[in-house]
Parts: sequence; structure tokens; C-alpha cells
Amino acid sequence: MNRLALVTGAAGFIGRHVCQILHGQGYRVVGIGYGDWPAEERRVWGVDAWRNQKISIEVLESMTKAEGEPEILIHCAGGSSVGISLEHPRRDFEQTVVTTADVLEFARRREGRLTVVYPSSAAVYGVVDGRPISENAPLLPASPYGVHKRMAEELCQVYAMNWKVPLAIVRLFSVYGPGLRKQLLWDACIKAQAGNFSFSGSGDEVRDWIHVSDAAVLLVLAAEKATPVCPVVNGGTGAGLTVKDVLCCLGRLWTPALTPNFSGKVRHGDPPCYVADVSSMHTWGCRPEADIGNALADYIRWFKSERGV
Amino acid sequence: MNRLALVTGAAGFIGRHVCQILHGQGYRVVGIGYGDWPAEERRVWGVDAWRNQKISIEVLESMTKAEGEPEILIHCAGGSSVGISLEHPRRDFEQTVVTTADVLEFARRREGRLTVVYPSSAAVYGVVDGRPISENAPLLPASPYGVHKRMAEELCQVYAMNWKVPLAIVRLFSVYGPGLRKQLLWDACIKAQAGNFSFSGSGDEVRDWIHVSDAAVLLVLAAEKATPVCPVVNGGTGAGLTVKDVLCCLGRLWTPALTPNFSGKVRHGDPPCYVADVSSMHTWGCRPEADIGNALADYIRWFKSERGV
Repeated sequence: MNRLALVTGAAGFIGRHVCQILHGQGYRVVGIGYGDWPAEERRVWGVDAWRNQKISIEVLESMTKAEGEPEILIHCAGGSSVGISLEHPRRDFEQTVVTTADVLEFARRREGRLTVVYPSSAAVYGVVDGRPISENAPLLPASPYGVHKRMAEELCQVYAMNWKVPLAIVRLFSVYGPGLRKQLLWDACIKAQAGNFSFSGSGDEVRDWIHVSDAAVLLVLAAEKATPVCPVVNGGTGAGLTVKDVLCCLGRLWTPALTPNFSGKVRHGDPPCYVADVSSMHTWGCRPEADIGNALADYIRWFKSERGV
Repeated sequence: MNRLALVTGAAGFIGRHVCQILHGQGYRVVGIGYGDWPAEERRVWGVDAWRNQKISIEVLESMTKAEGEPEILIHCAGGSSVGISLEHPRRDFEQTVVTTADVLEFARRREGRLTVVYPSSAAVYGVVDGRPISENAPLLPASPYGVHKRMAEELCQVYAMNWKVPLAIVRLFSVYGPGLRKQLLWDACIKAQAGNFSFSGSGDEVRDWIHVSDAAVLLVLAAEKATPVCPVVNGGTGAGLTVKDVLCCLGRLWTPALTPNFSGKVRHGDPPCYVADVSSMHTWGCRPEADIGNALADYIRWFKSERGV
């Protein structure tokens, strides 16, 4: 019988890559999340069983009855946008914090036999000073999204400390890759297609872009590194690139001589520099492999096939 | 038509005192919480209407439809014990954090017309250094109860900052008084009745004892002081008394020459000194009035009548 892995939010942008890696490592992968997911499509991602259900302790228990006891659980479900958290804060709280409470309570009942990985976000850092951000930087999240992520982390620490749940937290920076239907690259492709390659902001904002496949590798590795001490690691490349750098590269790849214009007006609340200190990740022996140039070309190919361009 | 006040956990130890004060100030008081509460009993506490229901946005909205729009909401519902939070962490999370999320979302929809007071706990401070604790001391809660209280506070700050909900947080220290069927005084009366006045610990633990009627006055005052800056004030007396002081006094009042014995073994996790810096509370013009000697005599009278001693 195969070892079992449970992935919440398995159909999501990051979740499906996590499933694929776990499946490749020989796990039987059970996914839970929202929406119909036809068997032929989810099998491509290595998802052996799928539950289209709201996460709750009862559902997790019933899945376990049907599928067996999981060894690891990677909790990819959760709110996924600062904007939505501002529009629907109660829903973001439910999706991020309440589901984490349920996952952890489910794990507590397994008395150390279930390892949990929590994919958090660099948004927990909030206000930063521009230098690479280490994991023990103060947590001053600026959005409900970031506060909810921090609250989910706090719950993880409570369960690790009091009930010795083997846990690890990964704070992901700017995750990108095919399948992401929002944020900078998606907007940029839409604008490139429309022939109006103009952006708000100065273009000088520095971000740490980590490819979704590298992020997923790190999340799966985190399951091996999890302990009741609940280690926390940043998930980034450690290399900052400006928004302008990324858009210039994407523009060139889209069509020669397509260059971005910027309004120059800095958006309130946009931190100028958000780059991970990745020494903890390196200590784990993990180094991102994606080349951003190739990855952007991939992204464009995916976008064009999606949109029939 | 009277101004309306909504009190969650209105039937609880602190909630009922809050209702009484609000009623005395001319509010029509609507309570929500668990349990049957006969009209004749709740009217003694100034509760004009009562809902025996689980707190949710839907229930709060339906109450408002029936009773009218409240001007203030004092959220006294929530987990009430470190011990229970360790035994049933998911339930404590639900009672403390999820109900607060619902209350705040309900308030957000009122666009500044509903003021919310959150009774938090000194448990959010956790590890302390023995000096009077000011509101900007680090928050290092040691129990799930304390972490959940801190999470509820974090939600308050998010709603105050992003949606200008008028809010105030009161961190209550050791609240005592008739009606409290647990903790030191309750246990002490049971032991006094049994004739075995022995206690664990050294008796040297210093606590800041605030009478429930003083705590309730402060919570109602906090509704006047609430703003979208979300002020946080300690609720204590500023005067520390050792457990031994309190038990010696209680013993003498119970029967002459009844003195407590202590095991001398310090309990793990029991901070030696927990006293509020009450300067913020004083700035609000609030000073506790209860005399601990009289209050302990009251407590004993209440206990004896409860137990038919």
C-alpha cells in the first residue's frame, strides 16, 4: 500500500504542482478543494482521489475513513489575494484561518503521526526596510490577507508547541508560473495582447520571483524537515528583480521592441523592495532551478494557448 | 425609543454585570449567548431581550431586524479558561476567534455606526518580567487561550484600521466576584467548606485582582473611548496581592484561624508576578472602587447561599 499524502487546495495554482511532486515520489495523493475536477485532468497532476468539498474536521475524518491515514498534509488551501481580503475579509478569514484550525485539530488527533506543512506568505512581513528579509524579521502585515496568514502561522506554533504536531511553515515570496490567472504577468500578457503595455507604479519595485515548480519542491521538502519546533523558512530565490526588468523581458519575448511604460506614481502600500533572505532554505539544501527568461517564455506560451492567441 | 446595546455572552460572569450597567445608563439591552435564561432572572440583570443562540453574522443580522440597530456591542462571549483551551483548542478557537470575526464583520457592515468593545485578557502578555505590565509590552502568550485572545485582538486592529470600526480593547487581569464558579476563590471556598485549606504553589504568586463590577464599568466606559485607532487599556487595579494574602483574608472571613497551607512547589508556567500598569485606565478617568476585604466577604456570602452552607 502506498504512503498517503493529503493536499488541500489541490486544484489551485500551487497545490497542483505539490500533488505532481508527491505523486512522483510515490505517494498516493488525495486532494480536497472546490470545484469539479475531471479525473483525466487531475490525473495529469498526480491527484489519485479528489473531494470537491469545504474543508472541515468532519470531511477530513471521513476522507481518512475512506482513503486511509495520511502521513503528510500540505495545506495549500486559503485566501489568495490581498484585494479579495479587503473586499471580503470574513471570507478570507474563513479560507485562511478557520481551515488551518481544522487541519491542525485533525493533525492533533493523530498524535504526531501526521506531518503538516503550511504555505504562508511574505505578506506576513508587511513593512520592511529594503534589505533581504530574514525569517525573524518583525511581522507587521499591512493587509487582512497578511494578518490572516500570520494568524494561521500562530495556530501552527500553538499546535506544534502544545501537541507536538510535526510542522513546517514556508513563507513564499512572489510565486509565478503557468496557471496563474492574476497578478503582474497575467495583466501584462493581457496588455501586450491589447497592444497597450502601460502600468501603474514606477516599475522600480523589487520583488523576489520564485517559480511555482520551485515553490512546490520546497513545500514537499518542508514535510521532511517538519518537527514540533515548527521551523519557518522563506521561499524565494534571494535575487531581487524590478517589475521593470520582468516586464521588459516579457515584452521582448512577446514581440520585439515591446517595452513597458509606467505611470511613475508609486502606489500607496507597495513596499519598494521585497527580497528573501534564503539562507535557511539553502541550509535545507534547496536552491530554485527555474531560469526567469525561460519561465517567462513558458508563461507566454501557456497564456497564448489559454486565450487562443 | 431607547438606544440599543448588544452584549454577547450576556449570561456570563462578566457579561451580566455589563448588561446591568448599560441598562442603568438607559440602554435597551439585547443579550445573546448559550442557555435558557428565564425572563425574571435576566431582567434582574437589565437584559431586555435574550437570544439563546450560537453567534453568527446571520443571527446578529436577524436580531437587528427584530430589535433595531445597536449603537454599541460589547463582545463578552468567548473561551474562558486556559485549561479548557488546552483540552479543546478547536472549540476555544471557535468561541474566541471565530465569534470575534463575526462580530467585526457585522460591525463593518454598519460603516462606523456601531461601536465594539473587546474584553481581552492579560493572558496575551504571557511571559513577563515581574514589573507592572504596560499595554505595549510584548505579547508572548503561553497558552492556546492567550494566543486566541491575541488573534481576536489582531482582528480588531484589522477592522479598525481598514474599515474604521470604532473599537476599544480592554485587557482584563484577574477578575473575581460573586458568580464565578471556578478559579482560586471558588476552589478556596470548596476547600474551606471541606475543612482542608491546602493549595498547590508557593502562595507567593502576585496577581492583580479586579472586581467584576469594576471590570464591567471599565468595559462600558471603553465604548465611549472607542475609536478607529482602537485604543488598548489594561483592566486591573495596579496593586498586586499574593495568592497567600487573598487566601489568608478569605480564610479569616470564613472562620477565625483558618489559614492556608501551600505545597511550595511552583507550578510550571505560572508567572510569579502579574500586575497591570493602569496609567492608561487612569487617563480615562477610571479607578476601581471595590475593597478586596468587603468583596471577599461578599463572595463567601454568595458561595454559602449557592451551596446552601
